[in-house]
Amino acid sequence: MSGPLRFEVSATCSESNARLGRVETPHGGFDTPAFMPVGTQSCVKGLWPHQVEETGSQIILNNAYHLMLRPGDAAVARRGGCHQFMRWSGPILTDSGGYQAYSMAHINRLDEDGVRFRSIVDGAWVDLGPERSMEVQNNIGADIIMAFDDCPPAGDPQDVVGFRKRVTTDGHRGLAHHERLRDAHERTVRWLDRCVKAHQRPTDQALFGIVQGGTDLELRAASVEAICQHDLPGFAVGGVAVGERPEQIAEVVAFTAPRLPAQKPRYLMGVGYEQDIVHAVRSGIDMFDCVLPTRNARNAQAFTRSGRMNLKNAKFAEDDAPIDSSCDCATCTGGYSRAYIRHLLNASESMAGSLVATHNLRHFQRLMLDIRRAIRDNDWSAFRAGWPELRTDLAPLS
Amino acid sequence: MSGPLRFEVSATCSESNARLGRVETPHGGFDTPAFMPVGTQSCVKGLWPHQVEETGSQIILNNAYHLMLRPGDAAVARRGGCHQFMRWSGPILTDSGGYQAYSMAHINRLDEDGVRFRSIVDGAWVDLGPERSMEVQNNIGADIIMAFDDCPPAGDPQDVVGFRKRVTTDGHRGLAHHERLRDAHERTVRWLDRCVKAHQRPTDQALFGIVQGGTDLELRAASVEAICQHDLPGFAVGGVAVGERPEQIAEVVAFTAPRLPAQKPRYLMGVGYEQDIVHAVRSGIDMFDCVLPTRNARNAQAFTRSGRMNLKNAKFAEDDAPIDSSCDCATCTGGYSRAYIRHLLNASESMAGSLVATHNLRHFQRLMLDIRRAIRDNDWSAFRAGWPELRTDLAPLS
Repeated sequence: MSGPLRFEVSATCSESNARLGRVETPHGGFDTPAFMPVGTQSCVKGLWPHQVEETGSQIILNNAYHLMLRPGDAAVARRGGCHQFMRWSGPILTDSGGYQAYSMAHINRLDEDGVRFRSIVDGAWVDLGPERSMEVQNNIGADIIMAFDDCPPAGDPQDVVGFRKRVTTDGHRGLAHHERLRDAHERTVRWLDRCVKAHQRPTDQALFGIVQGGTDLELRAASVEAICQHDLPGFAVGGVAVGERPEQIAEVVAFTAPRLPAQKPRYLMGVGYEQDIVHAVRSGIDMFDCVLPTRNARNAQAFTRSGRMNLKNAKFAEDDAPIDSSCDCATCTGGYSRAYIRHLLNASESMAGSLVATHNLRHFQRLMLDIRRAIRDNDWSAFRAGWPELRTDLAPLS
Repeated sequence: MSGPLRFEVSATCSESNARLGRVETPHGGFDTPAFMPVGTQSCVKGLWPHQVEETGSQIILNNAYHLMLRPGDAAVARRGGCHQFMRWSGPILTDSGGYQAYSMAHINRLDEDGVRFRSIVDGAWVDLGPERSMEVQNNIGADIIMAFDDCPPAGDPQDVVGFRKRVTTDGHRGLAHHERLRDAHERTVRWLDRCVKAHQRPTDQALFGIVQGGTDLELRAASVEAICQHDLPGFAVGGVAVGERPEQIAEVVAFTAPRLPAQKPRYLMGVGYEQDIVHAVRSGIDMFDCVLPTRNARNAQAFTRSGRMNLKNAKFAEDDAPIDSSCDCATCTGGYSRAYIRHLLNASESMAGSLVATHNLRHFQRLMLDIRRAIRDNDWSAFRAGWPELRTDLAPLS
């Protein structure tokens, strides 16, 4: 393989921008559209690597932000990198650390050189900018690494849900939201130049650029144009799922995805629910990551084709059925009943999270399998029948 | 199989009372001497049943006390019993609930009809006595069930470590310790009569009697004689590992075990460390249970043949070796390093507990394998070489 990543599109959809493909990395390949489970601290919570693999997952995420703070990116490098460290032999992608710094730090400063925040591990001041983010990700050693971007909350303030309030110290306080978005876009473009220069392992780590612009489609277009000046191995749509409404996510993705280079994989960061994924695939997105299947598992939420269920609900106390009798995951075929899982949840047994996460990840991977099948066959009718709760007509052609 | 349990001794040791055997139950057999992992709430913490099986474990415990409180023993019965509930197809043993009631309840009353304590789940008053314990265990449906016994802290007050202070309301407060022990022994004998009468499933659940008597060997002898009046499928040595010194445990076990019927399995409850197990095997004990391998795993303690290690220790931060390079468990052969496990422990990832518990259980099962081999070959030299830290000369012949 020449270069760190190869992408081939093997089929396209006639009724949408969806495409079927495969990405090859130095640690093996994955089929697209792909869903990537999140292994924040170099571990998909509660699951052994082979269990993650058994859900049909072919590539996973690690979080640069968490690993740079603990055990430290240099320590991961000394362990032989993230694959060897966590014993996952397939492809891995790391985020740049920027988004997590924005959303998790209690106090941070944002200026042209990056962000400063308090470590959630020991409270020390930590500086993170384009050069340091590249160093961190070069050390961690994932197959795909992300540009360091400026990712403000999207949409109007009244649309922002659950995104922590931030304090900036370089004059942005009080700027109109649109100016903040434009500023973030422009800074992201400048930072990408610095990331490309700082990236020390371009032959075995594929650097993806990130498009910003919030919910402003003009800004999105400008960002696409500027970011894609670099002939990078892949591109991501960032600044979505940061608090805006699902319709806004759909609109931004439908607008942005088709404008990205067709011959490169397109990654929609941090999205999302099944419906969001289907829309994004039909807009032309190839890669997804989200904590929902694993995080919600620990909070008793199971995903099924007829909707989500809270397994702590008293109505499951005497329910001997598996979470989803049509599911082929290890939990559902293993005969673990809703009643048993509810008992483990009530008893605070970590096995509950493992059982539900196994099911949830398989649920998302079966969604991706069915999506890939629909694109391959250029026929969404079987998909519509198999996922009756999901609307597949919302993603506009562009 | 006639009756709920069959036991056959296939070899005996010429230099000690150790014997090699096999127990058959309605859910399959297990080789003795056997170590039984504890699945308190119908789950060996952090491990799927097949992972427990892969450590070489052939029989596990469930705790009647916990399951009667949550989800309720009748609910477990409606789920088809504990095997179906937790998806463990092999043999299961339940304790009577008495010991846990004594040691966990904040307030309890002890009289001829049993104990009264506050539920740790909802604070309600709960009564547990011989008849109710049998009902609970009949409902849970384990292959081996235990008589409801009176289990006071052993030894002199100054020897009692880590056993919660109890309040009794039937005049025992202020009794000399010896009188309390005698009383417990006599009550245990009377309760056994009631258990035998109350046991509703004698054809498929094997009821084991429990010998009490604390550290008083005369009382132990009297207890053995009285308890063994019942021709039960097996007998247990109770009232050990309740706070006394290891030497006292060894003395009591060496005295008591050989006095129990030779043709029935002998079970030493709640013991213990490797050294204790070896001594007890050489005294004639066939079955062991202990929470050490799983509980200590969650607290970062790994067992190895050269001693225990605390994996949180800073010295492991850059240690790429497995916990024990001579170990054949899934954790050690899977390449998970001490550094990685330490990272997961520091990051509060439940996978750390799963990785270490897997190793620790395998450690104990390899101990049992080597013990069984030594008895089979009537030769402890290979055992002594393989477990240099353990003394095998301390168990007296009797």
